[in-house]
Order: sequence, then structure tokens, then C-alpha cells
Amino acid sequence: MQKPSIVKGTRDFSPEEMAKRNYIFDTIRSVYNLFGYKQIETPAMESLSTLMGKYGEEGDKLLFKILNSGDVLAGFEDEELLQKNSNKFAVKACEKGLRYDLTVPFARYVVMHRNEISFPFKRYQIQPVWRADRPQKGRYREFFQCDADVVGSDSLLNEVELIQIINEVFGRFGIRVSIKLNNRKILSGIAEIIGAPEKVVDITVAIDKLDKIGLEKVNEELQSKGISQDAIDKLQPIILLEGTNKQKLETLKSSLAVSETGLKGVEELEFILSKTELLDLKSDLELDLTLARGLNYYTGAIIEVKALDVQIGSITGGGRYDNLTGIFGLPGVSGVGISFGADRIFDVLNQLDLYPKDSVQGTKVLFVNFGEAEADYILPVINRFRLSGISTELYPESAKMKKQMSYADSNNIPYVAIVGEDEKNAQKIMLKNMHTGEQQLLSADECINILLR
Amino acid sequence: MQKPSIVKGTRDFSPEEMAKRNYIFDTIRSVYNLFGYKQIETPAMESLSTLMGKYGEEGDKLLFKILNSGDVLAGFEDEELLQKNSNKFAVKACEKGLRYDLTVPFARYVVMHRNEISFPFKRYQIQPVWRADRPQKGRYREFFQCDADVVGSDSLLNEVELIQIINEVFGRFGIRVSIKLNNRKILSGIAEIIGAPEKVVDITVAIDKLDKIGLEKVNEELQSKGISQDAIDKLQPIILLEGTNKQKLETLKSSLAVSETGLKGVEELEFILSKTELLDLKSDLELDLTLARGLNYYTGAIIEVKALDVQIGSITGGGRYDNLTGIFGLPGVSGVGISFGADRIFDVLNQLDLYPKDSVQGTKVLFVNFGEAEADYILPVINRFRLSGISTELYPESAKMKKQMSYADSNNIPYVAIVGEDEKNAQKIMLKNMHTGEQQLLSADECINILLR
Repeated sequence: MQKPSIVKGTRDFSPEEMAKRNYIFDTIRSVYNLFGYKQIETPAMESLSTLMGKYGEEGDKLLFKILNSGDVLAGFEDEELLQKNSNKFAVKACEKGLRYDLTVPFARYVVMHRNEISFPFKRYQIQPVWRADRPQKGRYREFFQCDADVVGSDSLLNEVELIQIINEVFGRFGIRVSIKLNNRKILSGIAEIIGAPEKVVDITVAIDKLDKIGLEKVNEELQSKGISQDAIDKLQPIILLEGTNKQKLETLKSSLAVSETGLKGVEELEFILSKTELLDLKSDLELDLTLARGLNYYTGAIIEVKALDVQIGSITGGGRYDNLTGIFGLPGVSGVGISFGADRIFDVLNQLDLYPKDSVQGTKVLFVNFGEAEADYILPVINRFRLSGISTELYPESAKMKKQMSYADSNNIPYVAIVGEDEKNAQKIMLKNMHTGEQQLLSADECINILLR
Repeated sequence: MQKPSIVKGTRDFSPEEMAKRNYIFDTIRSVYNLFGYKQIETPAMESLSTLMGKYGEEGDKLLFKILNSGDVLAGFEDEELLQKNSNKFAVKACEKGLRYDLTVPFARYVVMHRNEISFPFKRYQIQPVWRADRPQKGRYREFFQCDADVVGSDSLLNEVELIQIINEVFGRFGIRVSIKLNNRKILSGIAEIIGAPEKVVDITVAIDKLDKIGLEKVNEELQSKGISQDAIDKLQPIILLEGTNKQKLETLKSSLAVSETGLKGVEELEFILSKTELLDLKSDLELDLTLARGLNYYTGAIIEVKALDVQIGSITGGGRYDNLTGIFGLPGVSGVGISFGADRIFDVLNQLDLYPKDSVQGTKVLFVNFGEAEADYILPVINRFRLSGISTELYPESAKMKKQMSYADSNNIPYVAIVGEDEKNAQKIMLKNMHTGEQQLLSADECINILLR
């Protein structure tokens, strides 16, 4: 006998959690479909050569590696083993690993299927990924990503469309959000005017603290990071950037006047904001220079979404990147994408209690089992209920009434149908509403009408 | 630069394949829901100790094992490594493996969550599993299982319900099937009357050949397997079993008269068949003694489903088993379950061309992009289309008309909407049907009505 356990950092999903997760994934899926994105799936396992070197040195360590089948050690010389170089060993003993994200498998997919794909390719993908991170609250070793990307199109209309998708998804969820926008080119422009490209992150981190610590302390922090007084002077209007998005863009235009790249970034943002204005979005859009997400990766737009009514990190993010597939031999494919954070959205919906009732409703009615004669009578009745689309159960044993009722109770089944000998003879059903306790003697048709309401 | 490849035995799923697979999974999922089954999911990775020893020696070899993170070799003595015992090494260097089926993880789930579960527990689970099998046509290293099981109830009404589910799922698919039934207890009864329990599989294999090789050769084969003439004589009515299910059961009743177990099996089958008769099922039910699927595993009903119009192996199977969770310390939990073979159903639906058109329909209409002024005009129009539930795309660049039309073509988009300067000024849309080539000048509302048809 063995006491079973679950792998650290992974989760079982109970029926209720699954119903909620299905609601999230189905909502995202239908919005992606509405905008013409096409779903693909890739295998859980990729060749390690596909994965290694794509996520930095730290990422390589976080890859789950799969031991080759068969007599693995036979391929090793004694000396190789005795060196006990675990990294070198792993590369030779493991040809496969679990996917770490959906982007690299997507890049591989695009390259391998480039002759079947008609570009621009709008794809979405909702699958788990695995990372050998140290498990902690809210960080799992297996979690789901919900990515949508357009590759093979430089048009900024793609950015506009992704913002519409974000707006529509959170609109359907009933989560009020602020969509924050930045542009990598603006950050590059800032780096240019202060003559210190490597300081961009320091600057965004410092600006982010403005509300909390005030301008004086922000400037001190910039100084302590080795930024010259001249540069800090130039940065003042950027640090203090205020007003509407339009006003902010005007300020940036003059501050970044000498940087061609910076002005290009401002122009891109202007385009995106002006198009979204035509669309009457529910969500706020806000230019936010402190967004520096994926800085080594994104080349244009940077997008992050914050929930307004819950204290939690970004619940969706994305941006534009260049050269997705270059490493696999297909240069010149740029793209833009977003990724919904399913785990955090799950938490937000829970905290705000926003799940629609029918999304977590399982069985609608349980028929009590009184024995074989009654069961014979109700089996075809139950069949009719199901053909009408009503999720229906018959308790499989003629157990004590109390046990059957408590089954209905703990499974949150809202109605119980009672057909004993009397009801059978009268060709009626006693329908009990489990919330109100009310009972009604009804025909099968009347029952179905009530349950379909 | 690196030429990317996919792991042997695994597959990418293209948008069209995904649409078809979603149709299959969504259909199965909604029927499971209709019958009150609840979905769960378990992690891809399980502790190797949970998996090892559950699938026989061969199964242990087919488990994908995940190398522990960190400095794996540091935990080994030199001598241990130099023994080069790969099996022993793997057990120590790998704590985790990928799930091999959905049954063992389900058993672990039931044991770990037994205090939250209200039995009988009707669960379903649709997830991939992984096996390090030699890849070959139709056999993959990653494939999906769609299991439903009821645990904690001995009632044969569960078997009846699972047969209804099979009937309903294949009815929705439009696949004509024969549902074949057997019972492990009948096979045990046969073993009993010939006094050779270990020969049961030989007997079912020989009976299976009756149509092809005739009675004489079947008897010869039984003889060659070491079955006595006396036993073969007793087997004759069973080998030649014919007629309706009722007639077959009568024959079995007299042949197995001396075997209490055998008669119990006949009685169980009688019960199941008599209840399904109340239900007006579309599928044929057939008692088939050659079903010996999972013989070491099943203890009661054995179920297999054959497609009538396609030559292919069993497309669904299942049965009743005892003591699912005993190995994890929770004895006395019996269950009964079925598993739909998604990959084979995919093939059958393809061969019979049974996918409903709207299940593979992606984008309904593509708006041609004529440049910024026209785009500004149509962006809100497109928004209205989408709010009406019409999957709509705007080509992201104002590329040549030919290129945009060919995009619609290769993505099977049935309608193209053309709004150039003239249409814009007239506030009209030129809607082109890509199948007929027909064009109509319409208002946005008229367009929406046509596209929603």
C-alpha cells in the first residue's frame, strides 16, 4: 500500500474548478474565433535542441528534460560519467524536453508548416507549459497559457485588433480593466537622449516610484544609478508626464524631438490610440512609460492589462517582436501577440464573484431511485429530459432517501424528481426545488418546461 | 541557424485539424455533461512511484521519465554510475514521469480527494497521455483519451447509462455503430467448465476465427492449444453461439449451468440488455464472446464499439473493474468506465465525411483593406459584425486585391466584403460570395442578415 501524492507545484482541478476554467477558456476561445484567429496545438514534448538557448541560461535550467528511453547509460564512457557534469550529461541523456512557453513551439510550427500557411497567419493556442521553477504561492510548475499572435504583417491594425480582443474578453468576463500601452521605440528614444541605453530599466523603475516617493527621491535614485545631472534634467518632463494620452504624446514629441526612433514610437502609439477611438471600447487605454515588460524581446508596442477592482499583477500582456523564426532559418517574420493569464483571471473572477451561474451548473435534476419497477418506468422519461438538453441523473442504487438527497445536496443539484409508486401510477413527477424546498406534482412536459427556464 | 523538427511520434494540429478535434471533444463533453458526469483534470506529471508497477513490466519501460532538476549526478557514487544499470539509474535520477493513461491518475485523485467527493463519483477526463512506444502508422507517443467512469456504485444501471452515452455520442456524430458486450464472468464460467482458466484467451481467439476458417479448424486449433477433447465437446454450443442476444443467453444459461460465476455473468448481461430495450437506442447491441479486452483488469461487463461503415479497430471500449484505488490505500471502490478513441473517431469522421460544415468554418467574411481612409470607415462596421456574432477579419495591409482575395481563398473564407471609395460614399458594402462569385451591393444590416443565415 502506497500513500499517493501529487507532484510539487502541480494541481488537480476539481469539477467546480474545471467548470470555471472551461468558462474562461471557452470565452477566450470564442472571442479569438470571432476575430478570425485559428487554433493550433503543438506537442507537449519538443526536441531539447528546439528549446535550449531560447530562454537564457536561467531558462535552460528551468526546462523539464525527458530521459531517453532504453539503455541510456550504455552510450557513456566511464570517464564521462565520473566527471559528474550534470548539465553535459543531461544534454546527451535527454533528447526531449517539455515546452516552456507557446512562443518557441509556435515559431517551430511556422517554419515547418510555412508552405501550408497563408500569411498573415493569425493563430491562437491554449495549452499548458512546464517550468522547473521553485513552487510558491501563485507560481506553478504546470500552468496554462492562452496566446494569440499575428505573424507576417507589420500593420499596426493588428495591435488595434488585439486591443479590441482584450476589451471584448474582459467585457464578457465583466472585469473592469485598464489597458496600458507603451512602445519599445519610445524607451529607446529616452535612452538615446540621455546617452545611456543600458539605463532604460533603471529609469522605468524609478519613474514607477514617483507616486510613492516623490520627484526628489526619484531624481536621487537616478543619480545613484550613475545617470548624469544633465540627463536627469532632460528627463524631468518625461518623469512628470501627465494628462490625457494626447497631452502625454505631445510632451514626448518635444522631449524626444532629437530621436528619430523615439518619434517613430510616439507616432505608432498615436496611430493605435486614434484607431481605438473609432471603436468605442469599454476599457480605459493609458500610455504608461513604466511598462518595460519583455524589454529584450519586444521591438514596438508593449501591452499590459490591469484589473481595476482587484489588487493583482498584470492579467494579460503582449507586444510586437521582430524575427520570431530567424533562429529556425526563416528570417523577416515579425509578429505581435498577447497572452491571457488564465490563473490570475481565475482568481479575479473568484474574488469579484463574477462567474455566471450556468457556467458552474452541472446536473440540473436528480431522479430518486426507488427500485427496479420505478426505474423501469422512469428510464425512458429521463431519456426525454436529456433529449431536451437537461442534464439529468438517476441515482444508481435504490439507497435510503436521505443518502440520495444528500448526494443531490453535495453536488449542488438544484432539483430532485421523485417518482414512487403513487407518482408512477398517476404518471406524474414530484419535482422538488432544493433551494426553496417547494414541491410540485407535474407531468413530464411541465417538468421539462420548468427545468429549461 | 537550426533546422527545426518535431519529436518522433508526436503531432502538430493545424487549424483545420483543431476545428475537427474540437468538434469531437465538444460533442463528447456535452454528452458527458448531459448525463451528469463531472470533468476533472490532473497534471501531466505524476510521481514515478504513482506510475511504476501499474502497467506491467512492459508498461514501466514505456513511461517517459523526467530527469530531476539540479545537479543530478552529485547524488550518485562512482560505483553506481559505473554499473551502468540504466533502469536503476532512472529510478533514482527521475522522480517524475508523464502520465501513461487517465485511470491511474484518476485513482490517485479519488484517494487524495476522497473527503471532498460525494460517492458515487461520476467523472470524465479528456487529456493527452504519453507512451514511449515505437511510433508507427496510427500509433502515437502523445495521444488523447476521453474517459468517463463511475466509481463507488455496483449498480448495473451505470453500465446501462454508459451504453446510452455511447449511443448518444455516435448518434450525434452520425456514425453507425455496433456496441458489443461481453462479461468477464461468462468467460470465467467457460474456463470453469473446461477446467482450464489459463486457456480463456486461446478460446476467444479461436472462436473469433470461426467465420474465417470454419468449425473444424477452430476445434483443431483448440486441440493444438492443449484443450482436452472432452472440454472441446462441451465448448461446441458456445463456439457455435448464434441467434438473437436472447437466444445466445439461453444457450449460455444451459452450457454454463454448473458455473455459478458464469450464470451470474449471464444474469448481468440480461439485466443490461433488458434495460436498454426500454430506451429505444439507435445502435445495435450484440453479445460477443470474443471480446476479451483488458481481461486481467475487467471483472464484469466488457464493452467495445465497432464502426459499421469503416474498416477500423474498436473506436470505444470499457468495462467494470474492482478495486481501482486499493493500491493507494482505499479498498472496496469498484467502478465502470468507457474511453472514446478520439484519433480513430477522427479518422472515421474523415473517411465518411461527416463533419458538419459549421464545425470547420472559421472566419465568415474578410473585409478588403483599401487604405487608411476606408479602414477608418469600416472599423466600426466590422465591430458591429462581430457583436452580431459573425467571425470577421480585416486584411491588415492595403495589399494588392489579388493577394487579399487569395488569402480569403486559402483560408476558406466564404464571403469577401469590399468597401472602396464608392461604397464608402454610398454607405454600402459590396458582398462577394466566394463560392458562386455573385456580388451584391448591400447595407451593413442586410449583410449581417445574410451572413447570419
